[in-house]
Amino acid sequence: MRLGVCYYPEHWPEEKWADDARRMAELGLSCVRIGEFAWAKFEPQPGQYDWDWFDRAIETLHAEGLGIILGTPTATPPKWLIDRHPDILAQDEHGRPRRFGSRRHYCFSSETYRRECRGIVTEMVRRYGEHPGVVMWQTDNEYGCHDTVESYSPAAQAAFRVWLENRYGTIEALNKAWGAVFWSQTYRSFDEVDPPGATVTEANPSHRLDFQRFSSDQVASFNREQVDIIRAFSPGREITHNFMGVFTAFDHHKVGADLDVATWDSYPLGFLDLMPLPEDLKRYWLRQGHPDFQAFHHDLYRGCSPKWGVMEQQPGPVNWAPYNPAPLPGMVRLWSLEAIAHGADLVSWFRWRQVPFAQEHMHAGLQRPDGAPAPAYDEARQVAADVEAIKAGETTRSEVALIFDYESQWTHLIQPQGKGMDLLRQAFETYSSLRQLGLSIDILPQSADLSGYKLIVLPGLPILNAGLIKQLKETPGTILALPRTGSKTDNFHIPETLAPGALQPLMPIRVTRVESLRPLVTETAIWVDSERIVINWREHVELPAPDSELGVHVEARFADGSAFWIEAGQVHYLAGWPDNEAAVNIFGVIAKRAGLEPRSVGPSLRLRRLGDLEFAFNYGLETASLKGLVPEDAEFRIGGMDLPPAGVAAWKA
Amino acid sequence: MRLGVCYYPEHWPEEKWADDARRMAELGLSCVRIGEFAWAKFEPQPGQYDWDWFDRAIETLHAEGLGIILGTPTATPPKWLIDRHPDILAQDEHGRPRRFGSRRHYCFSSETYRRECRGIVTEMVRRYGEHPGVVMWQTDNEYGCHDTVESYSPAAQAAFRVWLENRYGTIEALNKAWGAVFWSQTYRSFDEVDPPGATVTEANPSHRLDFQRFSSDQVASFNREQVDIIRAFSPGREITHNFMGVFTAFDHHKVGADLDVATWDSYPLGFLDLMPLPEDLKRYWLRQGHPDFQAFHHDLYRGCSPKWGVMEQQPGPVNWAPYNPAPLPGMVRLWSLEAIAHGADLVSWFRWRQVPFAQEHMHAGLQRPDGAPAPAYDEARQVAADVEAIKAGETTRSEVALIFDYESQWTHLIQPQGKGMDLLRQAFETYSSLRQLGLSIDILPQSADLSGYKLIVLPGLPILNAGLIKQLKETPGTILALPRTGSKTDNFHIPETLAPGALQPLMPIRVTRVESLRPLVTETAIWVDSERIVINWREHVELPAPDSELGVHVEARFADGSAFWIEAGQVHYLAGWPDNEAAVNIFGVIAKRAGLEPRSVGPSLRLRRLGDLEFAFNYGLETASLKGLVPEDAEFRIGGMDLPPAGVAAWKA
Amino acid sequence: MRLGVCYYPEHWPEEKWADDARRMAELGLSCVRIGEFAWAKFEPQPGQYDWDWFDRAIETLHAEGLGIILGTPTATPPKWLIDRHPDILAQDEHGRPRRFGSRRHYCFSSETYRRECRGIVTEMVRRYGEHPGVVMWQTDNEYGCHDTVESYSPAAQAAFRVWLENRYGTIEALNKAWGAVFWSQTYRSFDEVDPPGATVTEANPSHRLDFQRFSSDQVASFNREQVDIIRAFSPGREITHNFMGVFTAFDHHKVGADLDVATWDSYPLGFLDLMPLPEDLKRYWLRQGHPDFQAFHHDLYRGCSPKWGVMEQQPGPVNWAPYNPAPLPGMVRLWSLEAIAHGADLVSWFRWRQVPFAQEHMHAGLQRPDGAPAPAYDEARQVAADVEAIKAGETTRSEVALIFDYESQWTHLIQPQGKGMDLLRQAFETYSSLRQLGLSIDILPQSADLSGYKLIVLPGLPILNAGLIKQLKETPGTILALPRTGSKTDNFHIPETLAPGALQPLMPIRVTRVESLRPLVTETAIWVDSERIVINWREHVELPAPDSELGVHVEARFADGSAFWIEAGQVHYLAGWPDNEAAVNIFGVIAKRAGLEPRSVGPSLRLRRLGDLEFAFNYGLETASLKGLVPEDAEFRIGGMDLPPAGVAAWKA
Repeated sequence: MRLGVCYYPEHWPEEKWADDARRMAELGLSCVRIGEFAWAKFEPQPGQYDWDWFDRAIETLHAEGLGIILGTPTATPPKWLIDRHPDILAQDEHGRPRRFGSRRHYCFSSETYRRECRGIVTEMVRRYGEHPGVVMWQTDNEYGCHDTVESYSPAAQAAFRVWLENRYGTIEALNKAWGAVFWSQTYRSFDEVDPPGATVTEANPSHRLDFQRFSSDQVASFNREQVDIIRAFSPGREITHNFMGVFTAFDHHKVGADLDVATWDSYPLGFLDLMPLPEDLKRYWLRQGHPDFQAFHHDLYRGCSPKWGVMEQQPGPVNWAPYNPAPLPGMVRLWSLEAIAHGADLVSWFRWRQVPFAQEHMHAGLQRPDGAPAPAYDEARQVAADVEAIKAGETTRSEVALIFDYESQWTHLIQPQGKGMDLLRQAFETYSSLRQLGLSIDILPQSADLSGYKLIVLPGLPILNAGLIKQLKETPGTILALPRTGSKTDNFHIPETLAPGALQPLMPIRVTRVESLRPLVTETAIWVDSERIVINWREHVELPAPDSELGVHVEARFADGSAFWIEAGQVHYLAGWPDNEAAVNIFGVIAKRAGLEPRSVGPSLRLRRLGDLEFAFNYGLETASLKGLVPEDAEFRIGGMDLPPAGVAAWKA
Repeated sequence: MRLGVCYYPEHWPEEKWADDARRMAELGLSCVRIGEFAWAKFEPQPGQYDWDWFDRAIETLHAEGLGIILGTPTATPPKWLIDRHPDILAQDEHGRPRRFGSRRHYCFSSETYRRECRGIVTEMVRRYGEHPGVVMWQTDNEYGCHDTVESYSPAAQAAFRVWLENRYGTIEALNKAWGAVFWSQTYRSFDEVDPPGATVTEANPSHRLDFQRFSSDQVASFNREQVDIIRAFSPGREITHNFMGVFTAFDHHKVGADLDVATWDSYPLGFLDLMPLPEDLKRYWLRQGHPDFQAFHHDLYRGCSPKWGVMEQQPGPVNWAPYNPAPLPGMVRLWSLEAIAHGADLVSWFRWRQVPFAQEHMHAGLQRPDGAPAPAYDEARQVAADVEAIKAGETTRSEVALIFDYESQWTHLIQPQGKGMDLLRQAFETYSSLRQLGLSIDILPQSADLSGYKLIVLPGLPILNAGLIKQLKETPGTILALPRTGSKTDNFHIPETLAPGALQPLMPIRVTRVESLRPLVTETAIWVDSERIVINWREHVELPAPDSELGVHVEARFADGSAFWIEAGQVHYLAGWPDNEAAVNIFGVIAKRAGLEPRSVGPSLRLRRLGDLEFAFNYGLETASLKGLVPEDAEFRIGGMDLPPAGVAAWKA
Repeated sequence: MRLGVCYYPEHWPEEKWADDARRMAELGLSCVRIGEFAWAKFEPQPGQYDWDWFDRAIETLHAEGLGIILGTPTATPPKWLIDRHPDILAQDEHGRPRRFGSRRHYCFSSETYRRECRGIVTEMVRRYGEHPGVVMWQTDNEYGCHDTVESYSPAAQAAFRVWLENRYGTIEALNKAWGAVFWSQTYRSFDEVDPPGATVTEANPSHRLDFQRFSSDQVASFNREQVDIIRAFSPGREITHNFMGVFTAFDHHKVGADLDVATWDSYPLGFLDLMPLPEDLKRYWLRQGHPDFQAFHHDLYRGCSPKWGVMEQQPGPVNWAPYNPAPLPGMVRLWSLEAIAHGADLVSWFRWRQVPFAQEHMHAGLQRPDGAPAPAYDEARQVAADVEAIKAGETTRSEVALIFDYESQWTHLIQPQGKGMDLLRQAFETYSSLRQLGLSIDILPQSADLSGYKLIVLPGLPILNAGLIKQLKETPGTILALPRTGSKTDNFHIPETLAPGALQPLMPIRVTRVESLRPLVTETAIWVDSERIVINWREHVELPAPDSELGVHVEARFADGSAFWIEAGQVHYLAGWPDNEAAVNIFGVIAKRAGLEPRSVGPSLRLRRLGDLEFAFNYGLETASLKGLVPEDAEFRIGGMDLPPAGVAAWKA
């Protein structure tokens, strides 16, 4: 487990470097990320490289024993490169270039740009690949940030056509897969197919899904080119990329498969501001962030690569959210320890020192712009001490698996049917309700090994892979499927036997009709004596004939008698979206039946098991008691029975 | 009176066709619309036609006795045609093409496209025009859908200049008509005039009005080209076009004048979601639709052509509204019968079977995608039985005429003066208040024959035609004019004698000042003991001198003493926009004075007279009683004194 | 002190001119503005001028003794000019031209346009410059209206590069000033620098600030070209330009420095509608306008030039706000007299008569379109009488100076950090709180002479000029600095010693962290027994060591103990944004300490001192009493102790 920091030697006078390095080591950090935006410093003129200053920066940091994470600088091609090759710029759906002057102004399909990237990366990796101080490489920076995955440039158009031909072989196959007979969308050859942009009304959803798959694949292959170079010339070093939060425009599982360490950039307060939450919750969690947001992403990205971590941890107010408050004292420590509790191999703060100029000059660092310690500085030092005290072991598998899938998410975004419906949101809300039961969760791709899980949750995945279905048939665990599960084929059609399609061998029902509901419209479902409130989405379900081979049991029904909660053996299906209160109640019952021990922890307290340790985190503004959750004689490694706001406890469980 | 369905044989395996046709006939349908999006199947390669499959489809349907409505496929030009002639694409005000990939991607002014359309339509009409199964033609599909009336292409620019020269003769006349001296907008020749797009601030309203007139005329002439071909080669067949709801970008009266049957596409739930209503009403009418929305459009389009009907009737949840609930059980029947009560010659459901792919795969049909009956299937069967039971006669004229005019609507949209002010909305709200008084209404163009009407309502038409004024002077009926009536000349100027301009011979007042009011700002007008609340809009009126030849009587005044409700003989003028409660009260008084018998029916119950029949429709969620509205001894043909939700009654009146 | 009106002879038949002129004089007006949109009438064909009609218009007005204000017509280049030189059009950040059809469709950087403007202005000034009736010139009209300051045309790009080279000399200096090392934004030459448009995410703030400075300078130099021609050929005549409200895209102090009279266009009701106020206040002030809005702009523009005035005073409902109510009876008079109380040299109503056509046909005038007097006509006459009764002397300096600065405003807009944060808004709210204490205020640029002021307020100016700091060090007055003061360098960096940067010699603190707060999030600061509520913005401040040379006193602290209100000698600093109630209380204490005599006047009553006169204005809907505010034996020149709504009083103080 490593602690680190992001650092930009090029922003500071060289005479400060040695002291910076010394203080990093003194603070308890073991690694430092550098270089990822410095192309214009590395190659100030076309083909003329200047590595001397960077050599010295690396030596200075290495001299203090810091492991160096080198970022390739391909997120920021210099102006001279753009002026020479304007075809590098991505284009929007109207063909307008996305211009120089910030970052990520490139098209993943530009062959020119790929060639230039191979050039600079090869230069860099050849020079530093075997340096003893270099421990890890980061490719590029935050792929897709600022909506940069899709491009409608001529290069993208050409590559998309090749991609389609590879996928379909014949244009007839494409026409069939897309249902192109609808509205005379039939193509005569792949050369007639454009990216789905600037259409009069919505483009064909199958067309859009394939364009998203293509665009995602372009990110993965762009990344792979760098990975291949690094593997070739920097043996033994780990490779990472820093993902973002709430971002699904490319398939992180695919990119993650080429990495050793999936990292992400965790900004709890900035993201809270952007979340579609009620205002009162945004005010309550103003300086803490949402108690499930960070954990959700930790668990999601843990499922992407052999190791994972946080590459950029928010240290104070940022500059990019509509409102930018400061963290509650202690929260930077809490967020950092929470990552560790979820098994992080690396926690790295962004950035060492607030830079006094340019776009991010209002983004806090561990140090203020004047070099004095910012509040997070001492919290970082405390984290280093906590790590010693905690003595965490290896990450272990949880008992609950939540399946997330990027293609399925795209189907939601392309055809939400109900405003704001979105698989990521459904997965997050499901996760949050399960966490309010004190459960630890793994978020996994469809291809993951599901053996050993007591509860497997499908939070509304329209596209189900055959491999997943096979595992679901074999698991002795309990399965919970939420609305929209299995509702689409791979080509974005409705399955011949209707939803839940591929799940029907396990849940023999047919969803005959779906309704998306306005805000505040609810449906009531009756179960024992209590009400279950369904919001946003309701389905009408046809049950199998009573003499069907695979029987079903209806656990709860809507007021009109239609089935809501259906059980078929170990499989549960909900034909409507429960609000949080209903979800906690229902999931609690299912969890118990699955052999789990759910514990209600309320809105702001969170638990997490890591090997033989258990952690508690208090996101609330009041002190929380762990009585009843922790054995009376538990051995606390940090914290205790009473957790103040921003408090963390860890004990041997 | 015909029942029908929309069908797409090209979407389904040929082996299903015969069974589909058989079941349509069995369900009680007598006609079926096909073909309107199938250009790429008709002409898969440039100039190479493939009619064989369509021949077989027609024969199969004809064999079951179904009358065939053939749609021309010009709403969806194929990709090969666009690639060959990119000038077909419409352009937005910045000159950006609206691209292939959905539908309606063409410019009405493109001579290339007109030539191609004449080509495919001629081929089609020559082949099927005299087929005994063919009973009707539909031109294109939903002209203007997705904001496709206006185009700023070079073709549109050139055609606009010709249109202007035809209208004005000399550039001096145009300059005068537009008040071009204002802001140095004077032109030296027609060649200098562009469409009014991408201007720094709003363009000249006269310029915009003429561009809308031109754009509307382009739709009409585009349609007429197809009508002429059909009339030439398909004698005796009716011609229709399917209009939309809440759509005023072209003059439906002008297009309707070339048709035999004006049809429209009725989606009560989708439209409810889009209406600017308070949330609580959207929730209350969630699964029923607004009780006046459908009727308003029935009555509006009945005024367009000799016959009218519903070409696409919503059968279940749709895919295109922000939220898409399912109709309350019985509502599909109610909507269908309501159309019949308003005199529909055709009610046709969209579509036979939900298609499992492409843009509309979440749009319900009479059948589910798996071919089983959807809930609307049995309601359609019931409608067929109801039609038999009702034995409706011919449509008869109502006693109330509401005048609607597209040019007037454009003046509102171009110069709303108050946010959200809009003639269609004013006309709709006026209609709704009158319907809450149990009245049946005809919505008519200014040119209609108004003889025999007891009450003629002008819901705020700024531009009054001389022909209308002549009829108003001669009518013995009562006239109700609402704010903005007569407030503009034909060229979008303020009349020399101010508003109500051309109405002044009948209502000798001058509107000296208008105010648009913020939401929740109200003005009170006193009348006897009750308050009249004015919202949105208030006018200050100058009355004629007491010794004026034509006297006026002030029925109610604003709190500051200014006249609100003014009577001059049989003519009433309101100098402010009443809220619904006030409108119902005031209109009730006026209706009685006009010799009508208003009956208060509340928010959700609606009545409609058709010949010697009277109908009642319950849009509410509670059972409604007809006591007091129906004679005790009335002979019910369907329904009875107590109407459940979605209930319909018809009795001999 | 002159009263005037805006008039468009070209809009009316020539036979009306003489009567119009006669009635203007009869009404008590002494001047009339004409000509500013008539280019197409002056030069109907390229190079062919037609001045005859204008000669006659001028003679007609002059014959009645009216002083003529001539507007240059450069806000509306004719169509023939645009067609000949499309490069005149401004372009948006995507390179799209802003087209002909309204007004202000030109790029300030177009050399073509500058040449054409010099041409028409020279023609006009040579012809009329020495006419005895001409008393003033207005350059162009409302520079920047409709967001027309910035252009991204090739001409603007080229001029921007020259401007940058002039500013920085070397590209290295620019790279340093912009912190271009960040995100590889380094340039190799000025030819590589583009305007900061269409970037993927936000462009460099230093880059943006310089582009705004450049764009503003282009306005100033465009204006100066006309000023130079007028000075050369029209000796002795004053020069003005009519500024707008709430508009900061160019530096009005710089443009004002070239003028004799800074005028502005005052539309109280239109602007109220656009202000970000709570709905209940918008309803309360619906027909009066905000009680500080007009005064704020009077005081702001008084600080721009030797004289000032209102060129366009709203006379009734306008056409351009979302909602357009009519003024309360008396308000047109109140607004006019309020301008006079603030020292206006000119009040001119817009317009003489409502024009019945084109874009502004719903904009009221002193006369209705039919030529009858509108309500404002008699109010204008009353104002002329009031002016006689008041016998106002020269404007005198106030005791409170509020510093406003356009560059500082741009830093707020470019990097708000908190949504909606804006220096203009902060300055306005500060001004409003001070006015609720009955104070008269001068709004001044940083370069103004501050001697004699008892209280100098810095409402959050990030960039402080050395000259201002020098004066602040020397003043015996009290200084109040609000959050963000001194928080940026001239290049948009954080100062080396952090905020308040250049103010630290006077206020020796460091702002170590800032927080922008969501709506309804407040912080409490404790002071004596009362609470001070901080909204929107909070700072964390480091105080100097207790043994620091310059001691500070903390007057109030936040609940967490951090300093909120800090005093260092005569200097006060607030480390958070107070809400209005807190601001009135705090400012009242500081005002008293500064030797002022604050008097609480509540939300709607306003006072203003002018020489030895004092004025009161009632913006409320209830009668206000001046008891306690006016000496019992005061000599009222107009009004009295009880002020009705829209009432005005003036007495010798």
